[in-house]
Amino acid sequence: MSTPLFDQHRDTLEAALSAIQTRGYWTPYPEQPSPKVYGETASEDGKRAVEACFGQAFELDQPGCTGWLAPERFPYGVELGIRYPVCAPQLLIDAAVAAQPQWQRLGAAGRVGVCLEILARINRRSFEIAHAVMLTSGQGWMMAFQAGGPHAQDRGLEAVAYAWDEMRRIPAEAEWEKPQGKNPPLRMRKHYEIVGRGVALVIGCSTFPTWNTYPGLFAALATGNPVIVKPHENAILPAALSVRIAREVLAEQGLDPNLVSLAVVQDAADTRTLATHPAVKSIDFTGSSAFGQWLAENAVQAQLYAELAGVNHVLIDSTDRYKGMLRNLAFTLCLYSGQMCTTTQAIFVPAGGIDTDQGHKGYDEICTDLAAAIDALLADPAVATAVLGAIQSPATLHRIEEAGRHGEVVLASRRIEHPEFPQAEVRTPVLLRCEAADEDAYMEERFGPIAFIVRVADSAEAIALSERIVRTRGALTAGIYSTRPAVIDAMTEASWRAGVALSINLTSGVYVNQSGAFSDFHGVGMNPAANAAYADAAFVANRFRVVQRRYHIE
Amino acid sequence: MSTPLFDQHRDTLEAALSAIQTRGYWTPYPEQPSPKVYGETASEDGKRAVEACFGQAFELDQPGCTGWLAPERFPYGVELGIRYPVCAPQLLIDAAVAAQPQWQRLGAAGRVGVCLEILARINRRSFEIAHAVMLTSGQGWMMAFQAGGPHAQDRGLEAVAYAWDEMRRIPAEAEWEKPQGKNPPLRMRKHYEIVGRGVALVIGCSTFPTWNTYPGLFAALATGNPVIVKPHENAILPAALSVRIAREVLAEQGLDPNLVSLAVVQDAADTRTLATHPAVKSIDFTGSSAFGQWLAENAVQAQLYAELAGVNHVLIDSTDRYKGMLRNLAFTLCLYSGQMCTTTQAIFVPAGGIDTDQGHKGYDEICTDLAAAIDALLADPAVATAVLGAIQSPATLHRIEEAGRHGEVVLASRRIEHPEFPQAEVRTPVLLRCEAADEDAYMEERFGPIAFIVRVADSAEAIALSERIVRTRGALTAGIYSTRPAVIDAMTEASWRAGVALSINLTSGVYVNQSGAFSDFHGVGMNPAANAAYADAAFVANRFRVVQRRYHIE
Repeated sequence: MSTPLFDQHRDTLEAALSAIQTRGYWTPYPEQPSPKVYGETASEDGKRAVEACFGQAFELDQPGCTGWLAPERFPYGVELGIRYPVCAPQLLIDAAVAAQPQWQRLGAAGRVGVCLEILARINRRSFEIAHAVMLTSGQGWMMAFQAGGPHAQDRGLEAVAYAWDEMRRIPAEAEWEKPQGKNPPLRMRKHYEIVGRGVALVIGCSTFPTWNTYPGLFAALATGNPVIVKPHENAILPAALSVRIAREVLAEQGLDPNLVSLAVVQDAADTRTLATHPAVKSIDFTGSSAFGQWLAENAVQAQLYAELAGVNHVLIDSTDRYKGMLRNLAFTLCLYSGQMCTTTQAIFVPAGGIDTDQGHKGYDEICTDLAAAIDALLADPAVATAVLGAIQSPATLHRIEEAGRHGEVVLASRRIEHPEFPQAEVRTPVLLRCEAADEDAYMEERFGPIAFIVRVADSAEAIALSERIVRTRGALTAGIYSTRPAVIDAMTEASWRAGVALSINLTSGVYVNQSGAFSDFHGVGMNPAANAAYADAAFVANRFRVVQRRYHIE
Repeated sequence: MSTPLFDQHRDTLEAALSAIQTRGYWTPYPEQPSPKVYGETASEDGKRAVEACFGQAFELDQPGCTGWLAPERFPYGVELGIRYPVCAPQLLIDAAVAAQPQWQRLGAAGRVGVCLEILARINRRSFEIAHAVMLTSGQGWMMAFQAGGPHAQDRGLEAVAYAWDEMRRIPAEAEWEKPQGKNPPLRMRKHYEIVGRGVALVIGCSTFPTWNTYPGLFAALATGNPVIVKPHENAILPAALSVRIAREVLAEQGLDPNLVSLAVVQDAADTRTLATHPAVKSIDFTGSSAFGQWLAENAVQAQLYAELAGVNHVLIDSTDRYKGMLRNLAFTLCLYSGQMCTTTQAIFVPAGGIDTDQGHKGYDEICTDLAAAIDALLADPAVATAVLGAIQSPATLHRIEEAGRHGEVVLASRRIEHPEFPQAEVRTPVLLRCEAADEDAYMEERFGPIAFIVRVADSAEAIALSERIVRTRGALTAGIYSTRPAVIDAMTEASWRAGVALSINLTSGVYVNQSGAFSDFHGVGMNPAANAAYADAAFVANRFRVVQRRYHIE
């Protein structure tokens, strides 16, 4: 079978396959929004393309359209007013089911080629998608470009590479010859068909509408499944643009565009109808633990890949780069106003203080110094608004307002005026202090720019606490600062037992809340915060089955 | 780290890795019970070793032993009277949890080496295990040796090969260097630790106490998990011998033998306690759909790999080897008295009859001829008892007795006297005829030697019926006899849509109910009869996670 798109993108695929094995830094999608890479007019073109959608109906030509909905919020105060088609869930599923056999028969290489072409097109439109991500999620521009564009594309490509890596090991056919002593051998020919398990539902979140959507979308698609993307109602445009690109590529290839569709729903009941539909065989979900648990208990017909709430934390035991540590932590807490599922919420500091290159630092001093580091980082309003972005949801604004109830305020949150977007809800982090015993305060996820400096007896207590938090509350990230190998070893072993990714002594340009495709196994998939990682073999292998047939040959 | 067992068995592993990719015939475990291979005295030694267990306590030196139980049935009338230790579920789990960290630190190669050594030891004791399988399951001797010995070992090795194939692609560490334009690059070292997800529970069945136990046991073990084997109460000895061998190898290697333990339970509540225990992270289960469903709904903390009931079936559309077809089907129905999860239960025959190399054959004639083929196969009592084995459970005997209520009897079941075991419950198959509309009759699994020749309008109706049965009732096997490519193609496409392994025109020495390791994906894992296959990447990839740590380097 001819697979021109596969051949066209083969070098990228081969490099990605190499990257997921060697796990060094690699990407085919430049993260700098450079005119040299993306074109001199790319930035302006992208912005205009998004603005052209404002107030319009977003046409997708999907089946069963029953009306239009414009539910998006606008954290920067820029009213999008884009109306999306609402389609009957059953008709979206019918169309998806109908599209699957053709997609299956295209074969693994054919499917992977189409996926790589979709990703390449998405990459070329990174500015457009970045603007959509920024205006819906509230991310700062650079983050919207990088995390919403190239980094999200990396995660999509990573999923395709894993899918191919598994599928390529299934031979199309085999000859089987079993000796029968003195008699002629038994001989058979066997054919092995890779078959997607069925309709995939990908439920996105409001803060990372592409980064958390592409892995499931491309993993499911490459392994032979039709995909229904159900974006968060507050951040539809980035998903809608991505789905439209996918549908365009499919149509160009003579394939049924309904293989990928967008589900904008009138109410939550429609999401539940989709999730529990017998034809839906996998669900990728990023969002609340409550709905994740509901899916686990009710959508038992589907394999669930869930990224939920957690309590990320860092232990400060000692450091030989005190200022670097403070700067690193300050940036972590400020980046996108802590609206990342990987942002640190609890920082454990021994009551007796810590040894540093700047001498011994007491608990109180560390609180003060971290607050000062945050203030220093945000001193320049231009830097502050770029780093902080805007607050995505009223619920987060509310949490910031009432945060002081949960601890003693070390640093209060301030509203910052955004020079370009006067209505943007920009907030600085609130930093609280509390005791290890105040578990109700820091052991519940308080999504947003809210962090606790928790006073612990010593590092041993903090490590035990870390293990318990990971096991019972979940965490996507954990960090430690220590100059003592035995302490790092103890924390490492706790991270193995509980199952959390550990960052050690980050004092320069990498942050605990960052996770790089092809190198970092995001989320691990072993604790309540996530039952799957981006990405590994387990993320793709269960999305398809091998259906064989066999017959005798002479 | 030194891995002598891995090095010792490396050739076997490499060959297995090649076999799961090329999927031709291969095995390192000879299936012929030959003295040249297994030793001149192996047969007698094996029998004596099993007999030496009769009436004794089976010591395993496990923690928390609260008593002894001897619940096994004896389908051949040979009373075993072996008492097995009953251990408190919580103490078995505590011991398993305690054994895991050491097993993890041994690393993938170390674990795989130990697994391969256990399999090699089990192979050397194939006669002993075969006798145990025969006396507990009721299988005929040759089948007990082959399916209970080498073929089961093949499936265990296959799981180890898949586990290694996934784990070997995770590097122990990586260097990550991200360019920063004119600034020095960001550099990190990252370490990747493979961590088993937690205690694995492997729940065996009474008919294939090793073949259906080894895949889960070895998949879980190789990927870093402690395993508790909970055999069926009617077929404990084969599992107990296997567990003892595993514990011996572990102890010899200085590892905690409680990594593999045997759970013989006082009542079903203990099984439910084990299955729903928070520390249990995977369950491999072969058995009833009712308990499988219970596990799916209640053991939500665990990944479930289940092989359940189904309605296997064959469509006869036409054939150019009529006699070969009848002989093949007759053997399929007789082998181990149909007590295989892969045995055909429904045979669809067009009302208008079929074209064959012996001329056109009407539906009635086919019924008569298949009955005659069964009679011919079983004419020699020595052959009959060897092929049929004995009926394992009273429930199956009861189903045989009442089978006539579900259709018109074409061939009645007979009791056959076993020359060596006068008390053995040997039964010939009962063959019934019915109409396609009699769905209550043939669309419910009637485990044992009970088959229906179902009159259908035509092959198109039969293919539609096949697809519906696979989707709604499940099936591990489907077959078709046809000389018409278009009919085979239609059946093939139905098999893809519904997800069932298809055997085409089997007229010689391979039977639809046989499934060969390294080549056949047993069970597919896409329909209600099984949610996983033996074996593929999906069978192993979800049993471990990668926990990483990272830090800057200069």
